[in-house]
Amino acid sequence: MTITEDTRPALGLPQIQSLAAPDMAAVDALIRRRLSSDVVLINQIADHIISAGGKRLRPMLVMLAGHAVGQAGPEHHQLAAIIEFIHTSTLLHDDVVDESDLRRGKSTARMIWGNQASVLVGDFLLGQAFRMMVEVGSLEALDVLSAAASVIAEGEVLQLSVAKNMETTEDDYLSVIRAKTAALFAAAAEVGPIIAGADKAGRNALKSYGMNLGLAFQLVDDALDYGGKAVDLGKNVGDDFREGKITLPVILAYRRGTKEEREFWRDAIEQGQNDDARLEKALGLITKYGALNDTIARALHYGTIARDALAPLPETEWKSALMDVIDFCIARVN
Amino acid sequence: MTITEDTRPALGLPQIQSLAAPDMAAVDALIRRRLSSDVVLINQIADHIISAGGKRLRPMLVMLAGHAVGQAGPEHHQLAAIIEFIHTSTLLHDDVVDESDLRRGKSTARMIWGNQASVLVGDFLLGQAFRMMVEVGSLEALDVLSAAASVIAEGEVLQLSVAKNMETTEDDYLSVIRAKTAALFAAAAEVGPIIAGADKAGRNALKSYGMNLGLAFQLVDDALDYGGKAVDLGKNVGDDFREGKITLPVILAYRRGTKEEREFWRDAIEQGQNDDARLEKALGLITKYGALNDTIARALHYGTIARDALAPLPETEWKSALMDVIDFCIARVN
Repeated sequence: MTITEDTRPALGLPQIQSLAAPDMAAVDALIRRRLSSDVVLINQIADHIISAGGKRLRPMLVMLAGHAVGQAGPEHHQLAAIIEFIHTSTLLHDDVVDESDLRRGKSTARMIWGNQASVLVGDFLLGQAFRMMVEVGSLEALDVLSAAASVIAEGEVLQLSVAKNMETTEDDYLSVIRAKTAALFAAAAEVGPIIAGADKAGRNALKSYGMNLGLAFQLVDDALDYGGKAVDLGKNVGDDFREGKITLPVILAYRRGTKEEREFWRDAIEQGQNDDARLEKALGLITKYGALNDTIARALHYGTIARDALAPLPETEWKSALMDVIDFCIARVN
Repeated sequence: MTITEDTRPALGLPQIQSLAAPDMAAVDALIRRRLSSDVVLINQIADHIISAGGKRLRPMLVMLAGHAVGQAGPEHHQLAAIIEFIHTSTLLHDDVVDESDLRRGKSTARMIWGNQASVLVGDFLLGQAFRMMVEVGSLEALDVLSAAASVIAEGEVLQLSVAKNMETTEDDYLSVIRAKTAALFAAAAEVGPIIAGADKAGRNALKSYGMNLGLAFQLVDDALDYGGKAVDLGKNVGDDFREGKITLPVILAYRRGTKEEREFWRDAIEQGQNDDARLEKALGLITKYGALNDTIARALHYGTIARDALAPLPETEWKSALMDVIDFCIARVN
């Protein structure tokens, strides 16, 4: 039986979280401790971020990946916290860049404390992340994490360049999400094995797993924005449309559309003609051309690559959990 | 003869720069190479930053400090470029936070490419800096530089907290500039000796030199904003006043003023009543209470500490140059 024919009943996120619960409690405690500062404003924003919660998917990957190739201990907790800090830092800056009002259903930090504080506290979090990396003292892990931080920033700038440009190709778009989303998933999955002392094959397996999981995750996110179960998304259907964001459903619908329909998309995305009536029309075009289903099909494709990447790993509950994370990410929309 | 009675004719910046010229040419080449990216927008903004130039004071400190305790080679060039990247990253974010239009007499990046690009390219530069640190491979240098990056960000947030609060004390203000300006000077002066393999005494001497030089540098900058030779400053007298920034001249004039004068300062700084007539009045009050002279006196005080910190170092042309940097920083205003 090949791994893609796996017929185990998939664990939901709660079961995966319960497997990782002792580790994640340690990670959370560490996050709280390392977010504290003598500067009151940093503590306030940090509290806001912590209480907003989120799934802590990325730090969980560090733990699962570490266990899957050997063992995971306090250094993994530190790396998991670092990954969450890098992620949160990019969220704070993203919200400023995208002028977002809501994140996970709550007001963004920039709406409460302003853009200035969001930029600077984001910088603080990144600085803390680097200090904590140095404490771990592994130059290999530092290499992976610093490269990821740099690639993420490069991806964000690239996204700004393609923003509101309807000629963006699917490949252009993949370059963006590979850098701005998948690179951190890949780094999270790779540093676990590095610190666990895994061999090159184990590291590469998990790096590939993380990269492809990240692509699937982002594509599902893009699909959710034009439909699907938006319950745990903390954002409304059409947010991306209203912000003029180019995502795969839009790219596919545009490329498959008639001359008039392409005109509609250019007006909507490039010129900001994006009221509710136009959102309705956009949803109609996305359905007409199967753009949502095909976005999900692409996500499934990357999910399968992620699953196959895990083949060399020993069969453990941790490996099962890593597979279940793929299912969970995709089940959000399917 | 103690070092404070030093009667050598001080070198001007051109002579110091000429001593460091071969090193700085290598640093500049490295900066150009490491700023290049596949992302066009990054290259554009990078070119803008490079051509804006500046004195490259911080990277020069890396080179001078390295030579002063032994030797400086390619790893010092790399560290010097890293220091300049961290500095430039904070400038890009500062300009967004302060909503500044001009920097070194040229339009800021945010005026040309917008706040979004400035935030993200700043993130990219910081990411590049960390990647380059990892390449150097010294955990000691990484420790110093990552701590500095974190402290700078913390200082920026702290500055935001004290902004527009006239009850800010001189000590509060010193905490801010110690973190946001002097910490990077200290790191620049300390990593040179670390990579040169200097002993603890040499490292500490140069760290202390850098920290106190940084304080003097910032205080002189503050003074220049309310007078003095603004030629090479690239900003106009009164910019800080118009932005409602609290600096030492304002703190001293406020604390020494009458009840009515304090009211004036609160209206100006806290309420934004800062037209040209009020700037005239502010300059008058600063003169009346000797606030500018005393700010310069504080700068001289830290300059003297920086000078004494160098005592353990052997007498070389590099040590002389480090002393001359103090004189240059203070001579900008005196």
